[in-house]
Amino acid sequence: MRPIDDSPIVRDGKVLILAMDHGLEHGPVDFEPVPETIDPSTVFDVGTHDAVTAMAVQKGVAEAYYPSYEDDVNLLMKLNGTSNLWMGEPDSAVNCSVDYAVEEVGADALGFTLYGGSNNEIEMAEEFRKAQENARKHDVPMVMWSYPRGQGLKNDRDPETIAYAARQALELGADIAKVKYPGSPENMEWAVDAAGKVKVVMSGGSKTDDYAFLKQVEGCMAAGGKGLAVGRNVWQRENPTEILDALEAVIYEGASAEEALDR
Amino acid sequence: MRPIDDSPIVRDGKVLILAMDHGLEHGPVDFEPVPETIDPSTVFDVGTHDAVTAMAVQKGVAEAYYPSYEDDVNLLMKLNGTSNLWMGEPDSAVNCSVDYAVEEVGADALGFTLYGGSNNEIEMAEEFRKAQENARKHDVPMVMWSYPRGQGLKNDRDPETIAYAARQALELGADIAKVKYPGSPENMEWAVDAAGKVKVVMSGGSKTDDYAFLKQVEGCMAAGGKGLAVGRNVWQRENPTEILDALEAVIYEGASAEEALDR
Amino acid sequence: MRPIDDSPIVRDGKVLILAMDHGLEHGPVDFEPVPETIDPSTVFDVGTHDAVTAMAVQKGVAEAYYPSYEDDVNLLMKLNGTSNLWMGEPDSAVNCSVDYAVEEVGADALGFTLYGGSNNEIEMAEEFRKAQENARKHDVPMVMWSYPRGQGLKNDRDPETIAYAARQALELGADIAKVKYPGSPENMEWAVDAAGKVKVVMSGGSKTDDYAFLKQVEGCMAAGGKGLAVGRNVWQRENPTEILDALEAVIYEGASAEEALDR
Amino acid sequence: MRPIDDSPIVRDGKVLILAMDHGLEHGPVDFEPVPETIDPSTVFDVGTHDAVTAMAVQKGVAEAYYPSYEDDVNLLMKLNGTSNLWMGEPDSAVNCSVDYAVEEVGADALGFTLYGGSNNEIEMAEEFRKAQENARKHDVPMVMWSYPRGQGLKNDRDPETIAYAARQALELGADIAKVKYPGSPENMEWAVDAAGKVKVVMSGGSKTDDYAFLKQVEGCMAAGGKGLAVGRNVWQRENPTEILDALEAVIYEGASAEEALDR
Amino acid sequence: MRPIDDSPIVRDGKVLILAMDHGLEHGPVDFEPVPETIDPSTVFDVGTHDAVTAMAVQKGVAEAYYPSYEDDVNLLMKLNGTSNLWMGEPDSAVNCSVDYAVEEVGADALGFTLYGGSNNEIEMAEEFRKAQENARKHDVPMVMWSYPRGQGLKNDRDPETIAYAARQALELGADIAKVKYPGSPENMEWAVDAAGKVKVVMSGGSKTDDYAFLKQVEGCMAAGGKGLAVGRNVWQRENPTEILDALEAVIYEGASAEEALDR
Repeated sequence: MRPIDDSPIVRDGKVLILAMDHGLEHGPVDFEPVPETIDPSTVFDVGTHDAVTAMAVQKGVAEAYYPSYEDDVNLLMKLNGTSNLWMGEPDSAVNCSVDYAVEEVGADALGFTLYGGSNNEIEMAEEFRKAQENARKHDVPMVMWSYPRGQGLKNDRDPETIAYAARQALELGADIAKVKYPGSPENMEWAVDAAGKVKVVMSGGSKTDDYAFLKQVEGCMAAGGKGLAVGRNVWQRENPTEILDALEAVIYEGASAEEALDR
Repeated sequence: MRPIDDSPIVRDGKVLILAMDHGLEHGPVDFEPVPETIDPSTVFDVGTHDAVTAMAVQKGVAEAYYPSYEDDVNLLMKLNGTSNLWMGEPDSAVNCSVDYAVEEVGADALGFTLYGGSNNEIEMAEEFRKAQENARKHDVPMVMWSYPRGQGLKNDRDPETIAYAARQALELGADIAKVKYPGSPENMEWAVDAAGKVKVVMSGGSKTDDYAFLKQVEGCMAAGGKGLAVGRNVWQRENPTEILDALEAVIYEGASAEEALDR
Repeated sequence: MRPIDDSPIVRDGKVLILAMDHGLEHGPVDFEPVPETIDPSTVFDVGTHDAVTAMAVQKGVAEAYYPSYEDDVNLLMKLNGTSNLWMGEPDSAVNCSVDYAVEEVGADALGFTLYGGSNNEIEMAEEFRKAQENARKHDVPMVMWSYPRGQGLKNDRDPETIAYAARQALELGADIAKVKYPGSPENMEWAVDAAGKVKVVMSGGSKTDDYAFLKQVEGCMAAGGKGLAVGRNVWQRENPTEILDALEAVIYEGASAEEALDR
Repeated sequence: MRPIDDSPIVRDGKVLILAMDHGLEHGPVDFEPVPETIDPSTVFDVGTHDAVTAMAVQKGVAEAYYPSYEDDVNLLMKLNGTSNLWMGEPDSAVNCSVDYAVEEVGADALGFTLYGGSNNEIEMAEEFRKAQENARKHDVPMVMWSYPRGQGLKNDRDPETIAYAARQALELGADIAKVKYPGSPENMEWAVDAAGKVKVVMSGGSKTDDYAFLKQVEGCMAAGGKGLAVGRNVWQRENPTEILDALEAVIYEGASAEEALDR
Repeated sequence: MRPIDDSPIVRDGKVLILAMDHGLEHGPVDFEPVPETIDPSTVFDVGTHDAVTAMAVQKGVAEAYYPSYEDDVNLLMKLNGTSNLWMGEPDSAVNCSVDYAVEEVGADALGFTLYGGSNNEIEMAEEFRKAQENARKHDVPMVMWSYPRGQGLKNDRDPETIAYAARQALELGADIAKVKYPGSPENMEWAVDAAGKVKVVMSGGSKTDDYAFLKQVEGCMAAGGKGLAVGRNVWQRENPTEILDALEAVIYEGASAEEALDR
């Protein structure tokens, strides 16, 4: 098993994943704030920024667009996902096999969503098991989108829930855990501690203003977080390069939000 | 992966699929307007028209009739489908394996229905995954019938729903997306944009008069659509050759509906 | 794929299947009218009549009794079936694999029930797919018992339903479709037309008097039907040879019911 | 396929199976009448009696105790079974694979429960199919515990139900059918007839007095039954040897209950 | 099959399993009493105590931390487990395959939870079967966490229920059964008897005071139990070495609780 720090998706022990699976998860409505983002090439162009260590997309987008970017972008293939037309308990279809992702499309890393607390948690955990053990054979890291959701979850941003989600990523064998930001550096620290050797990154969430967003990322890093997985908060901006420059400062150089914005 | 434009089912980047799986999906009642169409040979004869780039049928029909037409027709094997006797949430049985379709029956392309929003969406997406990845091994293109339907879908012709359907085809790895016409070229353009490099074709729907039908197809092409998948609107006419001549003009030569009808 | 007319279960393009799976499907009560029929040997003896082209039984009966009859009877292994103790939506367990039927027991043909319209239709269709594609590898014909039944079916003898059932057999890849007789030669003709190249045979149903029964078979043949799959209407008679003689005349020689009874 | 009469679990065409899966099916409470029977060795010792042709146990018991008895006892591995803590529709987990039973533990025969009429009947029948076809490969006989039970079954000792159960064993491919005693030799005869070439044995049921029990076995044999599968009625007695001596007389020597008790 | 007493996880026929899967089963809240236990290294350090014959953890924890301890700790890989966010009937996802556990991570033993009486009991028993038979191939012992729970279970500490749980472990093929302590040595003896050759260990449960806890363990050993599987009652103490010293005396040296505390 190759150390996660030797993976191309890690830079100085840190990670910035640019996600663009919103067309599947949320629908094309997510591209309306910046209409040209409906064209995946636009977001792949953004992904060539040095701050970005991997782009997370679904199989079809990778097949169609990644060949033009494989020299400049590391591919994180998101293995499962589903549309929000789905009305059942939270669940996620496995849309890509590990073999196909690694051997045919050239993925550098793999991503998998687990909805802890959903009535489909057990099925999803078993699908994760198969993917994770196969990922190990290919020596490719596994990122878990660890999102408690569904029956019985009243507050998916409760600090204990987020810490539990981070721990699930450790217990089940992920290398990186993507969790929602639990509101404060103290809460984030609990999640980071619970994850042990697993790197915790916060998810970017819906678009907020630059300062508020960078302040959260600063808090995440201060708490021992290892970075960010972000989509809308980057490519729903008119100038994504600016915010990526700032994120680069906060994540890799330890800058504060204020310092990053002042550069 | 062979470029889709090099596939025999594509002509000058465009596609006209003649579908005849109505005996399974709707029952023999669909053949009543032109009774001889109950004999698949009749429709295969229509499919030899130059405008038609592929015929879409179920396995049994292909086994029994395609051998007589394999020199004149490209076969698009529809892999799933179900009768309308089915009363459950929208779903579609996988009636043909990819290996059998390609190796035993000689399919040039494969078709698969996805009912986004159905309680069976996730199962169908996973069946699609297996078929799609196997299709790639055989280097045969995959056409998705992307039809949101079922619990929670109030309006399956809502423009956003159609654009979402087209995007699902891209995200999940189809080469061609068959969607319902969303009512206007502007709406169709949204779907075309959402599908990125995936070709979008409109579905023909139930029979309408020549002008109305051709005007829709003209609108589809103007919006960047790449053609049509049609059944009843061709073979429920007394003279299908006439409408195919007109469709050929609109789809491959850029004619307007009026021009095509005046020829 | 060997032409169905070259199969040992076809005689001059026609078929007479003697079925005896009633012990499973209905229970031993079906043998009470002629008590010795509870012994499968009795019915196998009947099956040696020249008019019979195949005997349809379940695996266990074939294993135990067919070895004594393999020179005189063609074996049609019924692959699925279930008891009427079952109270769920219509469904049928797969009781025999294709490999076992053909390689170990020596089946000349295979039979499979599909309950279109049942909540289990899709699962059954997928089981049929696997059996049918494997049957093709063994070059053994597949007979579909196509019986719409279950939720949503109000009248399983409605002519349109029967024609739909026959069409399902064609679309899904059967060689022979067994359907209920829809009441008149005109209705039967619709089913025959809908089935295209697939041979349609009527099912014998519960016991009726000789004339009424033969008249139905005559109507079936006149409509283009290719024969009969019959159980109780033969072996629930005291003298099954007489009715088989008459059926031979109607099915293979084109006799009317009256002519057949006058011989 | 080796003739069942050549199997080590058959003696002169007859069978006496000593079952001890009660620890799983009923719980340790079944051992309370004779507390030392909680130790499987005690019952294995009983099983060395000449009258016993096979001992039926679950995998774990076989693994732990059979090695000490393999020279003196024939092993019938019960492949499925479940605890009575289970509150769902009657069902039975497959606790042992055929390969493991035969190749690793040395089973001479296999046993499988089918709950006809349960909502799990179809799943159980399909599990039986896989086990039965694999058993044939190993040339090991298959005993079906054929116990209609569950939704829709009002009376599981109704003579027609028992005859149906016996017939299911024949139709599905068992070699021996274990059924409940239907109350009289006449009713048992119906079951025996329905089973055709399949040997029918009665199940011993809960403990009764010597005479009543032996009288039932006598009735079973008179009706053409081939023996008994018994547990509590043997090892819940203080002196199991006595009742086995008597059973030996009734089953293999055709003695009446009275004769057997007088010896 | 290697005798269980030759396994590295057994010392003089006895077992002390230190479990730390609480991060998955209960969440990070279990680490709050001794905050540093959130770091798995802390608990692995505890596990190097001579009294501990194996540490039970989930796959991810083993992958990340076991390599540093493989010379000093025997690994018991817990194969299934689930979070308490799960609101369905008791169930447990299979999070690790046997092959992966043994071949890739170096497990010395395997653990599996069975919730007898749950509506998922049958599925879990079948998953256990596959794991157990594969474990035999690798000659690695199998420990069953046998915990009746779910629909129909009113009292999971009822002595009969605990004895039943122990018997299930025997019948299904475990080597060691972990059960809850049923309240008295007499009750524990019933469980020990019911388990036959299977070693029974009590589960440590939630934290109690030293004397009460050691008295239970003394009672377990007196009843023929073979040890303990414990988590919180060890690592939720400030000085886990002290209690392990005492447990060593009680389990391996036959000391009473009082003697063990007086040392």
